[in-house]
Amino acid sequence: MSRHSSNTLHTDSPPCCFDKMASSTTLKIQFQQSFTPNALRSYLAEFISTFIFVFAVVGSTMASQKMMPDATSDPTSLVVIGIASALGLSSAVYIAAHISGGHANPAVTFGLAIGGHIGAVTTIFYWASQLLGSILACFLLKLSTAGHPIPTHAIAEEMTGFGGAILESVLTFTLVYTVYAVGDTRKGSLGVIGPVAIGFVVGANVLAAGPFTGGSMNPACSFGSALVSGNFKNQAVYWVGPLIGATIAGLLYEHVVFTHSSDSSPPGSPGTVEGPIV
Amino acid sequence: MSRHSSNTLHTDSPPCCFDKMASSTTLKIQFQQSFTPNALRSYLAEFISTFIFVFAVVGSTMASQKMMPDATSDPTSLVVIGIASALGLSSAVYIAAHISGGHANPAVTFGLAIGGHIGAVTTIFYWASQLLGSILACFLLKLSTAGHPIPTHAIAEEMTGFGGAILESVLTFTLVYTVYAVGDTRKGSLGVIGPVAIGFVVGANVLAAGPFTGGSMNPACSFGSALVSGNFKNQAVYWVGPLIGATIAGLLYEHVVFTHSSDSSPPGSPGTVEGPIV
Amino acid sequence: MSRHSSNTLHTDSPPCCFDKMASSTTLKIQFQQSFTPNALRSYLAEFISTFIFVFAVVGSTMASQKMMPDATSDPTSLVVIGIASALGLSSAVYIAAHISGGHANPAVTFGLAIGGHIGAVTTIFYWASQLLGSILACFLLKLSTAGHPIPTHAIAEEMTGFGGAILESVLTFTLVYTVYAVGDTRKGSLGVIGPVAIGFVVGANVLAAGPFTGGSMNPACSFGSALVSGNFKNQAVYWVGPLIGATIAGLLYEHVVFTHSSDSSPPGSPGTVEGPIV
Amino acid sequence: MSRHSSNTLHTDSPPCCFDKMASSTTLKIQFQQSFTPNALRSYLAEFISTFIFVFAVVGSTMASQKMMPDATSDPTSLVVIGIASALGLSSAVYIAAHISGGHANPAVTFGLAIGGHIGAVTTIFYWASQLLGSILACFLLKLSTAGHPIPTHAIAEEMTGFGGAILESVLTFTLVYTVYAVGDTRKGSLGVIGPVAIGFVVGANVLAAGPFTGGSMNPACSFGSALVSGNFKNQAVYWVGPLIGATIAGLLYEHVVFTHSSDSSPPGSPGTVEGPIV
Repeated sequence: MSRHSSNTLHTDSPPCCFDKMASSTTLKIQFQQSFTPNALRSYLAEFISTFIFVFAVVGSTMASQKMMPDATSDPTSLVVIGIASALGLSSAVYIAAHISGGHANPAVTFGLAIGGHIGAVTTIFYWASQLLGSILACFLLKLSTAGHPIPTHAIAEEMTGFGGAILESVLTFTLVYTVYAVGDTRKGSLGVIGPVAIGFVVGANVLAAGPFTGGSMNPACSFGSALVSGNFKNQAVYWVGPLIGATIAGLLYEHVVFTHSSDSSPPGSPGTVEGPIV
Repeated sequence: MSRHSSNTLHTDSPPCCFDKMASSTTLKIQFQQSFTPNALRSYLAEFISTFIFVFAVVGSTMASQKMMPDATSDPTSLVVIGIASALGLSSAVYIAAHISGGHANPAVTFGLAIGGHIGAVTTIFYWASQLLGSILACFLLKLSTAGHPIPTHAIAEEMTGFGGAILESVLTFTLVYTVYAVGDTRKGSLGVIGPVAIGFVVGANVLAAGPFTGGSMNPACSFGSALVSGNFKNQAVYWVGPLIGATIAGLLYEHVVFTHSSDSSPPGSPGTVEGPIV
Repeated sequence: MSRHSSNTLHTDSPPCCFDKMASSTTLKIQFQQSFTPNALRSYLAEFISTFIFVFAVVGSTMASQKMMPDATSDPTSLVVIGIASALGLSSAVYIAAHISGGHANPAVTFGLAIGGHIGAVTTIFYWASQLLGSILACFLLKLSTAGHPIPTHAIAEEMTGFGGAILESVLTFTLVYTVYAVGDTRKGSLGVIGPVAIGFVVGANVLAAGPFTGGSMNPACSFGSALVSGNFKNQAVYWVGPLIGATIAGLLYEHVVFTHSSDSSPPGSPGTVEGPIV
Repeated sequence: MSRHSSNTLHTDSPPCCFDKMASSTTLKIQFQQSFTPNALRSYLAEFISTFIFVFAVVGSTMASQKMMPDATSDPTSLVVIGIASALGLSSAVYIAAHISGGHANPAVTFGLAIGGHIGAVTTIFYWASQLLGSILACFLLKLSTAGHPIPTHAIAEEMTGFGGAILESVLTFTLVYTVYAVGDTRKGSLGVIGPVAIGFVVGANVLAAGPFTGGSMNPACSFGSALVSGNFKNQAVYWVGPLIGATIAGLLYEHVVFTHSSDSSPPGSPGTVEGPIV
């Protein structure tokens, strides 16, 4: 039952990861279909896109800190990181949109899985690719800058972990909601600027939440930088918050915002994909 | 008499909120049609889009103040808020364009009502959704940041309330004029980047007017932050100014800029919507 | 002989101001056709678009100066003005593209006239509209900010007027060249993001030339701010430089870059406009 | 064997520089076809686009230094240069996309040559055009600013040349990978925002790597500024790094990411270009 477009961001390519999966698909078949050439290309695309995004976010934080050691009290560093996030994510989503859907973020993949657009097995392979991409980005940054410390996401002193998780949850909700809106067939030719809209909402969120939680919205980014720096403080906040926000966005868009009556493709129509769709 | 496209930003979806309404539609019928599933989805879309925009504007102001207590005298805070406004609004308009038209602003809704593209009853429901979205954004920001004070729009000391209203009126005129231009059928495929153009003009306006009036252009944003902070000083300026600017833009575009001779759809043609169009 | 598209930025509207004019058109006929409803709408569109751009540029300069009196030695003011220019011009070009071509700049109009895409009489009416829009923007900024001084474009102390004119000439060359490229029919669907490309090149130029000449590229902006502030120092630089750059761009693109062999519309074909085309 | 679109960024124009070349083409024939009018126009387009990009990058660095002599320790200069790079390159790619493919960078040309989309002779002419454009931009900046010193790319003190080359290699990999993704036929209508995606990834990279290596990714930019300033220190880093990154991106996209099975045009089909395609 394909309710959305047969792929996230365009209409003239083979389907990838935004179709509603038939519930009868077994995990075993999903697993077998996870090693087709197109599936492997999707993992590579997620790996590279997450690499680019994390490189921009973590690198721009390091650049700010290098130029001004007291970067945490200078809003210019917020400008640097906010713009780098917006520009980097727009491009990262863009270059993978036609291959893997362009998530570059485990929370986005999870949100699409909640709405039934991606299977459990594929979700796991996407997550692994995204985490590896993030780790490599942080490792290469440390290597090439002669050991410059890798910054990690942190919560403002006066805030609680609970408040931080709420904030990350709200931020991620808006991101995943935007991803769903981009994939909505009712957008028509507006879909063309989808990657820019996704990058822009993340840039705005970083500018709004930077000094409070860092505005991560991305467990892969938080995990990769924590692993390479060896500092896992508050790591749970950057998984629980985003995944809750993604879940709410997925359920809301799929069951409330999307209007079933406008879906003209009946179950079993040619556009319907009955198996894993990576 | 559909003079513009049957919807604001795209051409292959059901009509929503930019058609010229038949004057014979009674308020009673409008009210009855305000509770259809599509109408309720429109309110939800306005609620979420306004939430995202206000979250970006108020959150980025809070972020600036946290990083630099003397933010009002540092132009870096202007950069933070200006960019957050541009990016946040582009995305907020984008994700609701195909559902509600993507106003995210009571002044925009009012300006479209002035031009006859939206009915009185729908306008009221849109306003309520927008105000609630703004209030929730400010409330969640206060909650998650452990009580950080919510900033409100304010007028520079040396300025009068009258001068502030003129400035907000001019700024909102350019915003609503841009919204009209985006919905103009003569734009053709250029409509695709409409949400970006709307976000960009607001970003430019914030950079130009930030230290004078804050560059609100949005009564919902000013009201929500005033309500949660409990500071309603100069609130009238942020309603009177924007609504006057929106009125002038609506009348000018509808009666002067739009060329009737290029309208090829006669009254009563299939594309014409004779009732409320939410 | 229509070498370019029958209008600057889109393909499904009536022609406006980018066609090659028949050389036999007399000034008298041009003048008579300068008062049709569509011509008057074009002047209004240029008036409003120039107003929006100048409001963004001059307003953001005033905002920087208000927040930091020593703005000329703080690169943050450069960021504020550069981004405001890019965002404001993108929107200003966008909203007028389907009506007047979206020049918002006398140098752009001049550059298109040099290439034969606009007549002498129309050029004069466009210039008048642009100058009036700029003057009104500066006047309203002064009025609403309770007499805040209006900044004008100025040349760095160590530079000569000659050097300033060269710099403004180079900057304007890149702007007008970009306008020509946007109107080139070979761009196909890429034309859709034309207004963004035009705004972006101006933003980049302001960031590069701001502390040297202000990065005006726009005689209307320089003249309006000079008139309202009463300071005409170096005004000639901001007319001579841009007009020379526009002339070179127009001649180069029209006679060298544009490939005549790819022009499939023969003289006298239906798409050809033989008279004034505003 | 045309695996990608017959031109980089659009589908309704004559082919230019992104087709797979027939391996039988001899250097001699390539050389002869390097002086056709279209080929000469391509060189001019690369010359002008590189000029615009280098003018934005080097000019914005000079502007930062003029406003704040200690610019290397102020992250605001990073914002100025990062945004100028993103906006300038987006426009530079855009205006040449339909003529030369819009490289504006010897590393991009090299990366496309590695993938077989451009011949050895054409690569040389593109390089020469790009280097000349960069040199002229730096020369005009020096001339018009009354001898203001031209800044060059430099490596942070604590870093080795090897680390710098790795960093430049990673940055350029993401750029050339993005260029390949833009030219991928599977992107469909998403290709329209390709120039923006290319500019954005470079902007993000500059913000991430600015204080470490300058974030050049462009041998023409590094060479032109070095030549005019007379400072060739570390020049090799800015050639070796980018060319290695471009090579990896070209090989990876061409042989792994691009899916041959989705290529519907058989060898020798009408869309196939068998000779040099500039």
